[in-house]
Amino acid sequence: MYIPTFEDMKAAHERVKPHIHRTPVLTSSYLDELTGAQLFFKCENFQKAAAFKVRGACNAVFGLSDADAAKGVCTHSSGNHALSLSYAAGRRGIPCNVVMPRTAPQAKKDAVRGYGGKITECEPSTSSREAVFAEVQAATGGDFVHPYNDPRVIAGQGTCSRELLEQVQADHGGGLDMVVAPIGGGGMISGTCLTLSNIAPEVQIIAAEPEQADDACRSFKAGHIIADDAPDTVADGLKVPLKELTWHFVSNHVTDILTASEDEIIDAMKLIWKRMKIVMEASSAVPLATVLKNKDRFAGKRVGIIVTGGNVDLDLLPWLK
Amino acid sequence: MYIPTFEDMKAAHERVKPHIHRTPVLTSSYLDELTGAQLFFKCENFQKAAAFKVRGACNAVFGLSDADAAKGVCTHSSGNHALSLSYAAGRRGIPCNVVMPRTAPQAKKDAVRGYGGKITECEPSTSSREAVFAEVQAATGGDFVHPYNDPRVIAGQGTCSRELLEQVQADHGGGLDMVVAPIGGGGMISGTCLTLSNIAPEVQIIAAEPEQADDACRSFKAGHIIADDAPDTVADGLKVPLKELTWHFVSNHVTDILTASEDEIIDAMKLIWKRMKIVMEASSAVPLATVLKNKDRFAGKRVGIIVTGGNVDLDLLPWLK
Repeated sequence: MYIPTFEDMKAAHERVKPHIHRTPVLTSSYLDELTGAQLFFKCENFQKAAAFKVRGACNAVFGLSDADAAKGVCTHSSGNHALSLSYAAGRRGIPCNVVMPRTAPQAKKDAVRGYGGKITECEPSTSSREAVFAEVQAATGGDFVHPYNDPRVIAGQGTCSRELLEQVQADHGGGLDMVVAPIGGGGMISGTCLTLSNIAPEVQIIAAEPEQADDACRSFKAGHIIADDAPDTVADGLKVPLKELTWHFVSNHVTDILTASEDEIIDAMKLIWKRMKIVMEASSAVPLATVLKNKDRFAGKRVGIIVTGGNVDLDLLPWLK
Repeated sequence: MYIPTFEDMKAAHERVKPHIHRTPVLTSSYLDELTGAQLFFKCENFQKAAAFKVRGACNAVFGLSDADAAKGVCTHSSGNHALSLSYAAGRRGIPCNVVMPRTAPQAKKDAVRGYGGKITECEPSTSSREAVFAEVQAATGGDFVHPYNDPRVIAGQGTCSRELLEQVQADHGGGLDMVVAPIGGGGMISGTCLTLSNIAPEVQIIAAEPEQADDACRSFKAGHIIADDAPDTVADGLKVPLKELTWHFVSNHVTDILTASEDEIIDAMKLIWKRMKIVMEASSAVPLATVLKNKDRFAGKRVGIIVTGGNVDLDLLPWLK
């Protein structure tokens, strides 16, 4: 198992810069007053493909040799990694094959195809996904870019907290006490650990997880990976389990994992939309939900919050269900 | 009738800067491709009180002498001007009395009170509003800050296009060919005319109006003010008629007034939310709706678009009705 290094993250940043946005860091005096903390929102909902995952995907795609790139890339994902890898492959002009469950939202499938990705559908089960993916990979010979358990992907995601810290220091005088990011498979959290443990080891790293998909929290307490079979939560980007590589970072560098209920997540999501006037996913609201639930812990602190993505179905808003 | 000058706008900018955000200018490669134009969105939905109107309101409030300020300010408005004047008065610590129709959305009333404004309710008719407002003004002696037909307000709104042009020049190399802004009473358009006719007279100024509240368009063609009695449109910030002062700017400096249907406005609103990941009002979508409807006219041009506000009821989104 190759553990990505700080040098890998710096190289990733140079590699992906031409293909991504340096997304803005927004603040809200209302939310600061409400929480008692000073919150800095790194808005990856404004990122290309509306997701931080484009950072890791671009690092993998643009790091390939020309010979390897010619065979294209492939992955399995029903969400933002599928979009992001298709975007990155499209930018490089190479094939991208994505295995998606046939039940994935039509809007996500349309977006993958819009970026030039080719979809092969599977049944919504792990066994079907693995079988179909093996066929696709064998047929195409494409490079497998895992959604998170891949050192190139983690190094790419690590560029986000580097920008966040630079932007807070440049525009808001001073550093951060904590960073809170959602945790699903652990790609963003691992990248955050990789970067901050090198450039700002004093910053606490808090992972935020839905109560209904709290496998990372239980893993963290147990000291080994616990993978749930099929958790269900409105934060649909956070249903996947930790893997060896992300467990390495979580177990070594994360300060704590906090959870929030479905209602708390939806309330926090609506509150951000209402007060900050930004469109973001339910997954991205889990950090604020945990801050609101644990005010004492965050009061008086300077807290970075990663807003991970903005791909949401505007016809199916969770507070209107 | 005192016509505000370029010097008034510059003085307004110095006066209001401590109390407002220099809101970001956002771009969208997707919308550029869709329209064939290069669009620069000045995001006043991120402004204090989520509305550009805070610029004019702050200029009026902070321009008062201490003696006048002590008596407070008053106005009538069911929308963003009520919020903005309450915000400005709250910042100065002076009373603010607002006459609002009893039918105004509860969220707007709550927001006015949240900023410290005092509401007197009237019936939803012009006669009731004028009668109640006269009583309130007589009782309080407060300075009347009209929502748009006030030179201080227009000078304040003019600071928005000044920032827009500066930001486009600094961050996107080069100026603008056109600016498109919504038109209701004409305060934002008048401020835009005031500023651009002085600093960039080559920039065309296009006003965008709902078909169902097209009194400004008909006024523009007729050469005199035509005021509708009670237009109805989803773009609820744009129902009010032009007045002498705004007519002066519209008739002298506006290049054209374009209109869009209700469906076109709602489609453009949803498209901006979906693609740009920002929450903004239906009124703010009218410019993009007119650009999409008149692509030939905007193709190849550098077009500034004023996103006027972000106060929207998240439980009543127009595409879900």
